[in-house]
Amino acid sequence: MNGADLLCKTLLQENIDVCFANPGTSEMHFVAALDKRPEMRCVLGLFEGVLTGAADGYARMSSKPAATLLHLGPGLANSLANLHNAKRARVPMVNIVGDHASYHDKYDAPLSSDVYGLAHTMSHWVHRIAGPDGIVAATQNAVHAATTAPGSIATLILPADAAWAPIAAGSEYRAKPRATARLVEHATITKIAALLRNGKRTMLLLGGRALRADSLDIAGKISSHSTIRILAETLNQRIERGAGRTPITRLPYGIDSALAVLKDVEQLILVDARDPVAFFAYPNKPGRLAPPACDVHVLSSTGEDPVQALAGLADELGIPAHATGLAAPALIPALRLEGVLTANAVCHLVAHYLPEHAIVCDESITAGLSFSEASLGSAPHDHLQLTGGAIGIGLPLAVGAAIACPTRKVISLQADGSGMYTLQALWTQAREKLNCLTIILANRTYATLHGEMKHVGVTNPGHNALRMLDLTEPNLDWPKLAQGMGVDGVRTDTVREFHRALQYGLQQEGPYLIEAVI
Amino acid sequence: MNGADLLCKTLLQENIDVCFANPGTSEMHFVAALDKRPEMRCVLGLFEGVLTGAADGYARMSSKPAATLLHLGPGLANSLANLHNAKRARVPMVNIVGDHASYHDKYDAPLSSDVYGLAHTMSHWVHRIAGPDGIVAATQNAVHAATTAPGSIATLILPADAAWAPIAAGSEYRAKPRATARLVEHATITKIAALLRNGKRTMLLLGGRALRADSLDIAGKISSHSTIRILAETLNQRIERGAGRTPITRLPYGIDSALAVLKDVEQLILVDARDPVAFFAYPNKPGRLAPPACDVHVLSSTGEDPVQALAGLADELGIPAHATGLAAPALIPALRLEGVLTANAVCHLVAHYLPEHAIVCDESITAGLSFSEASLGSAPHDHLQLTGGAIGIGLPLAVGAAIACPTRKVISLQADGSGMYTLQALWTQAREKLNCLTIILANRTYATLHGEMKHVGVTNPGHNALRMLDLTEPNLDWPKLAQGMGVDGVRTDTVREFHRALQYGLQQEGPYLIEAVI
Repeated sequence: MNGADLLCKTLLQENIDVCFANPGTSEMHFVAALDKRPEMRCVLGLFEGVLTGAADGYARMSSKPAATLLHLGPGLANSLANLHNAKRARVPMVNIVGDHASYHDKYDAPLSSDVYGLAHTMSHWVHRIAGPDGIVAATQNAVHAATTAPGSIATLILPADAAWAPIAAGSEYRAKPRATARLVEHATITKIAALLRNGKRTMLLLGGRALRADSLDIAGKISSHSTIRILAETLNQRIERGAGRTPITRLPYGIDSALAVLKDVEQLILVDARDPVAFFAYPNKPGRLAPPACDVHVLSSTGEDPVQALAGLADELGIPAHATGLAAPALIPALRLEGVLTANAVCHLVAHYLPEHAIVCDESITAGLSFSEASLGSAPHDHLQLTGGAIGIGLPLAVGAAIACPTRKVISLQADGSGMYTLQALWTQAREKLNCLTIILANRTYATLHGEMKHVGVTNPGHNALRMLDLTEPNLDWPKLAQGMGVDGVRTDTVREFHRALQYGLQQEGPYLIEAVI
Repeated sequence: MNGADLLCKTLLQENIDVCFANPGTSEMHFVAALDKRPEMRCVLGLFEGVLTGAADGYARMSSKPAATLLHLGPGLANSLANLHNAKRARVPMVNIVGDHASYHDKYDAPLSSDVYGLAHTMSHWVHRIAGPDGIVAATQNAVHAATTAPGSIATLILPADAAWAPIAAGSEYRAKPRATARLVEHATITKIAALLRNGKRTMLLLGGRALRADSLDIAGKISSHSTIRILAETLNQRIERGAGRTPITRLPYGIDSALAVLKDVEQLILVDARDPVAFFAYPNKPGRLAPPACDVHVLSSTGEDPVQALAGLADELGIPAHATGLAAPALIPALRLEGVLTANAVCHLVAHYLPEHAIVCDESITAGLSFSEASLGSAPHDHLQLTGGAIGIGLPLAVGAAIACPTRKVISLQADGSGMYTLQALWTQAREKLNCLTIILANRTYATLHGEMKHVGVTNPGHNALRMLDLTEPNLDWPKLAQGMGVDGVRTDTVREFHRALQYGLQQEGPYLIEAVI
């Protein structure tokens, strides 16, 4: 047994049994260790951004971490944008980054770089293994860091000489108790309960774990027995929604719309949510979105248990556990097959046909805005979003969600511009025969940026600007891109074509792609 | 005029007139500034790794920097792997990274990250602009840092509020003298000349700028008038080679082969090269590749003028300027159209048909090894390599080389595994109608790693190992991937098919792709 074997064994002992990987030479001993452990499912991605996005989707749906295996500084660098999203989503993840043998560092070989510094930028926890003796403790610490609520990005750097060093077979592994979500103090709950009776216009802002069905159910009961409104943060790791669940709208992305939604709020109660801020700064507009006179209070912070906090709050307010809440009625949008193919038409058809327990990976940016409303009464489903704003998460997220939940349909609502960032994920969908239906909302532009150009006063963009904002000349052909990676697909230009393709795609058990030219 | 306008104007004044860009909201004022300056060529890439790889290729071929425009931390993160390669190639590059308005930092908005820390990992020089007053000086300093020999990666962080702040039209711009390569002291040259007469088995190891035709010509004369051998480093930014130029072999990548090449050398003279080290550490093998008893001396360091140094050395050795060197005879490999399609067959056919002044962007990894020997007497051409070992450079490099040299044919010898990392570059080749012929050497595996698995003792890899090393199930279809991005292409399985496709591809003036299944 060597260090790599021991690390692999410890991961399995810690209940990590999926590894999204793209190894290189410095990770060969770890690959050899994985090869001896068929109980570890190894999933290859053809670009590292696929791996961290997939580990994120896996964690959102399974509530436990996957491992990633990354090759040196450049492999880690390629993974960072989706690590940023995962860090913002507060999911658990354990990254194993191979590095040169420690005694090789002094040579500054071509692939040497500051692995620790890179890891630090997008991880909550980083540790470089010094030698084989520390491997069990380091791995357990990484898993502990990753899984302590609310979840963290833990990055473990494994120098090649620690991986290949022989180790006695006897292991010092002792299972340690897992950290659970912290409870909110009763005094906090009674304080918030008192505030909710003060007559101010009040809103509960929910984020993170508070958007699962159990928390939402209680929040809905509180809202239905009072004048308190509920709202979700703009970008969320996972909302459990659809018929029978508490419907909740999200704070809009656009600063003017967001300010409008919050303008009359006198009291904002945060439940696993943050005091809302503008995505970007704009000249002469505020950074904080709540009105200056609005009071902001915290019911529960990230890492605390929102179910316990909300249940305690409902109890203080005298709302019985069996009270009626806001459960959305089953209300499927009507089938409309006329008209031109627009983003709204696509969203309505997807909401109409949404299979029960579907997982919707939403990186539709501007094009998918109408999906949320259209699907309020669709079959129960999960809605996963782009949490950190780093585009290129959607297709990888679907990979991870499908591996976590093999019996559920995963539907990607994917914008074209962001889809191109990590299109390699389609190959992994094909290889692993994942139950993923990808719908490309092809508006052939970075539509967000056209709006932003107007904001900065450019109403008539010229050659250079248009060349940087539009994806035309040439148009992308998504079915060909998908077929190039082993995923069948079709382009649709009309509602009827899209309707037919959607019915076909939903019947498949493997991956399929529909390009909707909107 | 605002800060963004002034930055753009200063870049143009500093002779930077190509910008590889993928902007976001925080860069909209800079996009508006570029829009007013049609003399700045803006080239969109659909992923940031394309941009820095293209800027690298542009710099190698034009010997001046391009700018890149990157969106916040995640955009910069996506660019880092090819920045690593560019940093190792010591090319000049100026990255403009937009960031949040400085007063917005305190809100830790979803897209906030440690931009400075990220930039620092892969740049030689980083500066965050504090406000609009410092823009001209900061931009000039960035260009100065980038262009001082041997060339550096300079990253300038532009907060949105510095970009949009109004600035008086009067500019404090004053052109500053450009730094040129430093000269090697005469004493160093005479010292090396004396060593070359001491009878030891001596090798000149050339790297960096010493592999251009002018330096190589002098090195060839020194070698042909002595027993001194010449050798190039393993990975090089640009070798000028082919008929009429000094042929030079490269230090092999594999550690055993590299040790064998150097084993008899008693004296190693470095010319813009580094004391050679192993790419990776291996148990019980040395990190330094020269024999322990070998003396290593420096004729010229990176940033010093190798032509002056080598000319001085030749002079000290009494070799006249008109002496005969090692110019390779024009010797085109014979046309062979029989047999199965192998990597060697592809390399020989490319060497046979190589157009004059072609630029070969080589990320063929294992598959293209025979190209160098096959093309020693081909038409004069440039050979560009993967300098830092971070895969995904080849297709972007071709973009930049083609923009720098629009009248020359750019040929990519591209492995399939590494090509998948930044395949989005094909779209930019199509949009810009670049004269790029891509040849995919499709061995459908990370072939390097199969060799490395044997090194670590795994002679019979199992399910998990094979799933991480092979690109099969499903096979990639490169013509479809290319067509999906507007580049026509064809798959070839036989020598005759490849021969026909190669002739066709070489006749095109725009991009074309040939998948050679080997």
